[in-house]
Parts: sequence; C-alpha cells; structure tokens
Amino acid sequence: MNKKLAVVGATGLVGRTVLKVLEEKNLPISEYKLFASKNSKGKKINFLNKEYTINELTETSFDENFDYAIFSAGAETSKKYSPIAASRGCIVIDNSSAFRMDKTVPLVVPEVNKFDLIKHQNIIANPNCSTIQAVVALKPLDEKYKIKRIIYSTYQAVSGAGKKGILDLENKETNKFPYQIYNNILPQIDVFLDNGYTKEEEKMINETRKILHKPHLKITATCARVPVLNSHSESINIEFEKDFKLNELIKTLENAPGVIVQNNFKNQEYPMAINATGFDKVFIGRIRRDFSVQNGINIWVVADNIRKGAATNAVQILEELLKNN
Amino acid sequence: MNKKLAVVGATGLVGRTVLKVLEEKNLPISEYKLFASKNSKGKKINFLNKEYTINELTETSFDENFDYAIFSAGAETSKKYSPIAASRGCIVIDNSSAFRMDKTVPLVVPEVNKFDLIKHQNIIANPNCSTIQAVVALKPLDEKYKIKRIIYSTYQAVSGAGKKGILDLENKETNKFPYQIYNNILPQIDVFLDNGYTKEEEKMINETRKILHKPHLKITATCARVPVLNSHSESINIEFEKDFKLNELIKTLENAPGVIVQNNFKNQEYPMAINATGFDKVFIGRIRRDFSVQNGINIWVVADNIRKGAATNAVQILEELLKNN
Repeated sequence: MNKKLAVVGATGLVGRTVLKVLEEKNLPISEYKLFASKNSKGKKINFLNKEYTINELTETSFDENFDYAIFSAGAETSKKYSPIAASRGCIVIDNSSAFRMDKTVPLVVPEVNKFDLIKHQNIIANPNCSTIQAVVALKPLDEKYKIKRIIYSTYQAVSGAGKKGILDLENKETNKFPYQIYNNILPQIDVFLDNGYTKEEEKMINETRKILHKPHLKITATCARVPVLNSHSESINIEFEKDFKLNELIKTLENAPGVIVQNNFKNQEYPMAINATGFDKVFIGRIRRDFSVQNGINIWVVADNIRKGAATNAVQILEELLKNN
Repeated sequence: MNKKLAVVGATGLVGRTVLKVLEEKNLPISEYKLFASKNSKGKKINFLNKEYTINELTETSFDENFDYAIFSAGAETSKKYSPIAASRGCIVIDNSSAFRMDKTVPLVVPEVNKFDLIKHQNIIANPNCSTIQAVVALKPLDEKYKIKRIIYSTYQAVSGAGKKGILDLENKETNKFPYQIYNNILPQIDVFLDNGYTKEEEKMINETRKILHKPHLKITATCARVPVLNSHSESINIEFEKDFKLNELIKTLENAPGVIVQNNFKNQEYPMAINATGFDKVFIGRIRRDFSVQNGINIWVVADNIRKGAATNAVQILEELLKNN
C-alpha cells in the first residue's frame, strides 16, 4: 500500500481531469506529487481535500522513488522525461503520442487489451482519444464476428485540442486551430502527412491495429473537428468476415465492458456529445445493418474524450497495474 | 419571352433564396407572382427593385396561366398544389420530397442529369440538399471509373431545417430539433424508419441511385446534424470498379461542371462550411486514396445547402427548361 504516484502535467486540461478521476476512485496510493512546467511552479491545487503545490518537472524529479507516473504534458515532455522516470524504476503511463507505436510499449485500453500490460519496459502508452472509444466498441465485435474493414468518420470536440481549443470556440477566435472552428467544420486534426492523410487519421488507423492485434486490418479514416466543446462522436462503418444477427450483435455490445448501448431509435434514443460528457463509458447507438455490403453495420459511438479518451483510461491502466502487483 | 413564373413559399428560407438567385440571374421571365400560406398574405417583399405583395396560395391560384412554378413550401403543400398547377399546364419545379421518387418525375441536378428534363409530366423534382452536392462530385467519377459502393457520413447545417433550425442553434433552444443542437451533434435528420435508418439517410441512398441512373448501386449513409448555421459537409468514401491514378482523378474533378477543387493539403487548403456559404459551387477536397480497399478514395464535399442544395439548383433547372423551349 505504500505506492507513490507522480502526476505530470497536472495543470492542463487532461491533467486536472486525471486528478478528478483519482479523487473519484479509491486507489491504494499513499503519496501523490504533482508536476508541471516551470510556468506553473508553486501554483496550489486542491486535491483529495488537501492543498498540493505544483512542482517543476526537472531531470532530477524522478530521483525520488516513484512507483508510477501519469504523464499528460505532450509528446515533447514525454520523450524527454518518461525514459528518465522509467530508468529510475517508475512505471510511466503516458498520455502523449510519443511512444504509442513503439513495439516495446504496450498501448492499452483496459476493457480491450489489459493483457498487454503483462510485458512492458516501464512505459505504457494511453491511446489517442478518438481511438480509445472506437476500440471499446470494436473489440467485442471483432471477437465474435471478425472485423474485415473499418471506415471511420469522426466529429471531434475542441477539448481534444486542450484549453486553447476550447477558447477558440468559446471566444470565436482562431488561435489554436488553423481556421475558425465556431460555426464551421474543419476536416483537419493535427498536421498533414505526405499521403494526404492527417496525423490524427494515421493515429486512428495504426493504433486501432495495434490495440486489436491485427497489424494488417483494413482501415481508413476521415477526422474532422466540430464546434462542440467536449465528447467526440464517430460514424463507424464495419465489415465483418462472419455473418451476424443484428439483435445478437446488439446484445454483444450491451454485454461488453465499458459500453452503454443507446439504440432505441423508435424513442429517438442515440448517443450524443452533451450526454456523454462527464461519464467514463463509451456510448453506442444507431446500430444498423449496412445493406451495401455482405456483413456490414453502421454504428454511432460517443464518449467523453477528456475522461475515457484520456484521463480515465490512464487511471484505469494504473488500477490494473495496482491489481497486478 | 412572355414567360410567367410563380414562386411558391416565397417567404421561407429557401423561397427567399430562390428570389435572391433569380435576381442574380438574368432569366427571360416577364412576369413573377409570389405565393405563400395564408399567414403571409399581403406581406411585401422587395424583388428585382420592385415591391411584390405575397399572395395566398389557393386551389385557384393556377387558374392564371403560369409557365413555371418553383415550389419551396414543404411536401404537404406540394402534394396538394403541384398537381393542380401541372394540370393547368404549368411546369412545377418542386423543392420538396413529395415527388422525388415518383417514376414519372425527373429528379434533376443540371450538372449531372439535365438530359432527364426531356421527359416529364409537368412536375420536376429538386433533390434533397445532401444528395445534390454529393452527386455533383460523384457523377464525373462514376463516368470515368464506375462507382461500385458509396459510404456517406454527413455533417449537416441547421439551415437545412429552415428558420426554426437556425433559431434553435442561435438561441440555444430546442424547438425544431428533438434535442439541443448547440454544442452537440445529432445523429438524426428527419424521422426514423423501421430498419433503423432515418428518412434523410434513405433519401440520400435512393436519390443518388435515381440521379446516377444506377438503381442497384451499393450505398449506405449516416446523416448527422452539426452546430453550424449553413453549408453541409460530407465525408464520402467511394469504391470504383476501375483503377485510377490519383492525379488524373483530381483533374477529372477539376474539369467537372459545378465543382471547385480545394485540395492543396500542403497549404492546409480544403473545403469548409464558412467558405462555401453564399456560393453555388460544390467544393471538393481531402481527395486521397483509401488504402483499405482495391480502388477506393475518401473525399470531403461542402456546399451551401440553401443555395446549391435547394434554391440555386431549382433556378438552374428553370434555366435549362427556358433554354430547351
């Protein structure tokens, strides 16, 4: 029970939500220390009914013995400090993209592939927000019907771009995004690659393959930013190898871990961003056969991208690690 | 040159835009008469530098000899009054869904299938807004590469639901839509059918097939309402029978009627709702190979749903009819 946790990037949008989720869960952690960049040094944060002072993250921060660290401070900070922490025996749960595709780093959504936590080299990656909610929906279907092809079209909230993304929408400004997001849809998230895809689209494709352990799975993606504060929505078209009965497929999702099915279309019931915000589940609805292909369906998947898509998933990984110890 | 046009539903969002588009074009029409429901009777509207008085639409309105009528007053009004007008020798261009799937009624997007105007029984249907912009993009590709399958995911603006839709977003109310649209995404447009699809999704599927003259084309669709005032965005995944070179495919679109290609992703150039509003073209970008299928692409298609998706397309049909006369 003498476990010590470092929360890195504790003042950011995801970091603050990590603290909130930690408060909600009763984890066997005896000591917490909060880190952020120099700018936030000395700031006070209320956490677990105590006042914590933010420490500056430095190369010697991990000379203290930490058992675990949750990093939510971006890829550059992770690249620099995660290996230092790991080399000191601290297990890092990293929210950034820095190590996700590293073969020695497990990329984990506990409902989907917690077995991947067995083997690691002290760094565990938290997937991209848009991927996490997708694979929670896809995994139970893949197990039962074998997924052949996935076509993603996303409707991603501005909170995925952090506080500055939220300010762009709220203040009708253009500081964070390349163009106005208020009253607009941007078919661009992250930068463009040479093949015309964005990095976000590439992440969704590669991370889905890694998490599902299907390195050659056929996937394509179009990722768009929408003028919504929080919670990503996704239109997912899936083709299976096996045939299915739609009611059984729906039952499979209803029984899946981390999933809430909202599919009673006769009552106009379906997942929506405003209802998903604040929750840790992945909401699935609009489940219907795609009549344009042999064994296909369309589904609509919504989740709180800051909670399940980042903070909650990281804390769930920590919970699993604590259980395994 | 002694042509007489009735504009029915002249006070609505689409009807007013019909008047605006008529003002922009110099059509050989000598006389206009504006109609609306009883509520708007006697209202004055400035049109072509003249003051017009709104007339109430009644069963005797078409006893006067009209050559053409553009109806933008909803399906119920069209069902009742279009056949009356047609029986009096007036050619009706109908913006509603009332007659679109009627086999005796041409469903026309001039850039795509103006040849269908040759044969009609005095009623011509204007397609659904989300379909119009899609088929302008699809037709040139179908001609060259033969489309095999289409997967639509739409991002539709609130103006598609008329003035009340706009008010729901602007005032953060819930009068028109089933749920709050402000800060939210609704995966529902129009009512649900027994198979779990919405009527909007069914329209996109059936109307695309009719306009492209491919009654068995494999199509699926997910239609969503987004908190954007005007201009629909669409993520379209297309599979072709024939192979293609991407640069030639892009050129095909660049040379297609009614299309503006905005595809220079290296300069973060792509179609956006805020840029499409006020224009009559269909903007296409994010054109890239879908590596998950033999001959596939993803594209992003944006157009002003009130202009090209409704009013402009109807006036373009009128232009064609006037030319043919």
